Amino acid sequence: MPKKVDHEKRRIQIAEATWKVIIDDGLEQASVRKIATTAGLSVGALRHYFSSQSDLLSYSMELVSNRVKQRIQTTAYNGPPLEMLTNVISELLPIDEDRRIEMEVWFVFSAKTLVDSKLESLSAAVYQEMHQGIENILRALEEFKLAKKGIDLEVEVDRLHALIDGLASHHLLHPETFTKDKMIHTLKYHLLSLCK
Amino acid sequence: MPKKVDHEKRRIQIAEATWKVIIDDGLEQASVRKIATTAGLSVGALRHYFSSQSDLLSYSMELVSNRVKQRIQTTAYNGPPLEMLTNVISELLPIDEDRRIEMEVWFVFSAKTLVDSKLESLSAAVYQEMHQGIENILRALEEFKLAKKGIDLEVEVDRLHALIDGLASHHLLHPETFTKDKMIHTLKYHLLSLCK
Repeated sequence: MPKKVDHEKRRIQIAEATWKVIIDDGLEQASVRKIATTAGLSVGALRHYFSSQSDLLSYSMELVSNRVKQRIQTTAYNGPPLEMLTNVISELLPIDEDRRIEMEVWFVFSAKTLVDSKLESLSAAVYQEMHQGIENILRALEEFKLAKKGIDLEVEVDRLHALIDGLASHHLLHPETFTKDKMIHTLKYHLLSLCK
Repeated sequence: MPKKVDHEKRRIQIAEATWKVIIDDGLEQASVRKIATTAGLSVGALRHYFSSQSDLLSYSMELVSNRVKQRIQTTAYNGPPLEMLTNVISELLPIDEDRRIEMEVWFVFSAKTLVDSKLESLSAAVYQEMHQGIENILRALEEFKLAKKGIDLEVEVDRLHALIDGLASHHLLHPETFTKDKMIHTLKYHLLSLCK
């Protein structure tokens, strides 16, 4: 079905143009007109792919979460377990330019969900998915017999989830003070503190 | 100097109107005109207190950080040390309506600093102040002879700082899933994990 593929490709291209406008100029500048121009389309052509600005923003936000999920699914699951788990979690951190762009967009969108209830349900769904993913990682730590005894799994999931988002936002907002190395080092230190 | 006091009072009133517009309608709606209307002033009268929108936004952001600092300075320093330190850190979390409003505004502003370099230096200064405050708290834990031996203070400051901002943002964005009780419980669990 080449037509369907092209349709989806074009939607992705428009969503990436939306990211670019958001990062360069801020969400308040992300009008349909500006996004169309950035994507090299007319407003009419863009409307063929997204019937409203709200649809377009939701899709652009969803694309961030889908990219992260795709990468986690294709992470190489080999090597020493602790290293492997660190690599999986690193997919949730702005460790390179692509991930920095995605997380910057996500951060801006998250602020927007505070005032835009249309984005809230998507944000809630992604939060739950991440939470589940982090629970899986901590369960893996137990299955590999690495975890300390007496750990409270439920609180540890909340703690690691909050820590990951805090680390990501600090590196995004203050990359020169809170460097990538510090971010990764703090994550490793935390994971080690959960191990025997 | 009653005149100077009045001037400052009026600036605070305008900054609080700015918060209200940001929380109700989003930062992209925070035009000088809308803020003036919300504050019950003419645009001309507002311009007497803030010469530009950028000045107004900077001041409104600074007011958040000053309020938090004021409260930390007036926190009752008594009771069991661990409880006292938890109370101090709680001032950095959205534990009630006033703090929720402040942190929501701060979160939106932080997203804005990613695209607005004028706000960056203020954001960097507040980040450093918070970092120093958190270092003081962890040093107090050591001085009270509560801290475990062999703790890496530098990494612990980075970890606690990221954790606090992660907890705050999770509760702000998902108050029904990640409740206030979970937020406080996770903080206490973390502090206890640093103790003997």
